[in-house]
Amino acid sequence: MFITFEGIEGSGKSTVMGRVQEHLEAQGYEVLRTLEPGGSRLGRQLRKILLDMESRDLTGESELFLYLADRAQHVASVIRPALEAGQVVLSDRYADSTIVYQGYGRGLDPKLLHTFNDVAAGGLWPDLTLLFDLSPEVGLKRALTRNLREGLADSEGRFEAESLEFHNRIREGYLTWGSLYQKRFRTVNAEQGLAEVVRDAIEVIDQNLVKRADSSEGPKPKTLRD
Amino acid sequence: MFITFEGIEGSGKSTVMGRVQEHLEAQGYEVLRTLEPGGSRLGRQLRKILLDMESRDLTGESELFLYLADRAQHVASVIRPALEAGQVVLSDRYADSTIVYQGYGRGLDPKLLHTFNDVAAGGLWPDLTLLFDLSPEVGLKRALTRNLREGLADSEGRFEAESLEFHNRIREGYLTWGSLYQKRFRTVNAEQGLAEVVRDAIEVIDQNLVKRADSSEGPKPKTLRD
Repeated sequence: MFITFEGIEGSGKSTVMGRVQEHLEAQGYEVLRTLEPGGSRLGRQLRKILLDMESRDLTGESELFLYLADRAQHVASVIRPALEAGQVVLSDRYADSTIVYQGYGRGLDPKLLHTFNDVAAGGLWPDLTLLFDLSPEVGLKRALTRNLREGLADSEGRFEAESLEFHNRIREGYLTWGSLYQKRFRTVNAEQGLAEVVRDAIEVIDQNLVKRADSSEGPKPKTLRD
Repeated sequence: MFITFEGIEGSGKSTVMGRVQEHLEAQGYEVLRTLEPGGSRLGRQLRKILLDMESRDLTGESELFLYLADRAQHVASVIRPALEAGQVVLSDRYADSTIVYQGYGRGLDPKLLHTFNDVAAGGLWPDLTLLFDLSPEVGLKRALTRNLREGLADSEGRFEAESLEFHNRIREGYLTWGSLYQKRFRTVNAEQGLAEVVRDAIEVIDQNLVKRADSSEGPKPKTLRD
C-alpha cells in the first residue's frame, strides 16, 4: 500500500507521518517512510538545489523538470522496490504536490502536468492520499517557528518566502484537485491540535487497510501472513 | 540566429565551435558561445550530476528530466536574452541531443520527447543545426585521447563508457532524425582533418547567414547595421 501525505507548509504532515509509522509498525506492518524532493541519492542533490534560497531565479519549467527527475528516480529506486517487497510506503509529498504547486500555484497546465507525472512515476499513483488542510496564516506561522527552531530559515525557506496569496492558491488548488480524485483523497482538518490530527489520520488509514485486507488486496500485517 | 552543434563524442564539434566563433566575430557579429548541459548556473550543477560516473544508476526518465530542466533554464536565462540582443548564439548540443540519446539511444518515444522539449524550450528550435558525422570507432578513440589529456577520464567519462553498439545507435539516430528536419540540419563529414571540418562548417554557416541577410531576417554584422 502506497500512502502519500500532502498539504501546505506547516500542516504538520511530517510530524504526523512519524506517529502513523509507529502505529503501523506496532500492528506488524513493515513501513518505509520517505519524502519528495530528496527520497533518492539523486533526489538529495536536487532537494538542495530546489529548496535553496539562491534558486529563486529558476523558471517554472526548470523547477517542474527537477521535481520530475527526482520523482522518476524515487519511484524506480525506492518506492517500487519497497512495494514489491510488501512494505507500506509513506511519502511526504508526491505527484500531487507538483500538480498543485506548478499548476495551480505557478500557472502551468494541470492536464499536461498529469501526463508528465505519469511518465515520471511510470504510472504509479498512490492508493491513499491524506490532504492536511489548514489556513495558510496558521500554516506559515507554524513553518516559520519550525524553521527558526531548526535553524533552517536560510537553507529551506524558499517556499515559505512566497506570498500569502500564493499559499491561498495552493490550498484551494489542493481542495480542487482532491475533489477530482475523491476515491483516493481524504481531507484531514490540520488546524486541530497534533493529537487530534494524528487520531484522524490513523482512523482514515486503518479504514483503508481493513477495506483492502477484506478485498484481499494490498499488504497484510506480518501476524496475519506468518 | 541560433546555431546548434550536434554529434557523437569525439566529433570535434567543441573545437570547431571555437573557430566558427572567431570567424563570425571577425565579420563583426556578436557571438554567444554556450553548451548543454551546463549553460546556466543551474545547468552547471546538473552537468556535474549528469556526467558523473556515479550517476550510472540514473533511470532513463530521471536523466531525461534533468536534461529538460537544464534546457528550460538555459533557454530562459541565457539563449533567449542573447537572441533578443541580436547576438548569434552557438550551442554545443541542444534539444536534438536529448531526442537522439534518450529516444534512439535509450528507447524513449521520440514523439513524446519532442513534446517535452517543446515545453522546456518554450518552442525555441535552432535556425541551423550542424551535424558532425563520423564513425563511433574514430570518435571514441578521439574522446578517450582528449579525456586522458585533460584528466577527465573519471569525471566526465560516463557516455564514453557506453558500448560501441550504443554509439552506433546514436549515430544512426542522428542521421534519421536529421533527415526528418532537413530544412535546418546540415551534415558535416567529421572524419576529415580539423582544417577541413572547420572549412565545411564555416561554409554552411556563411551560406545561411547570406540567405537570412537577403531575406532581411536574422542578425546582421555590425558593419551593416551601424
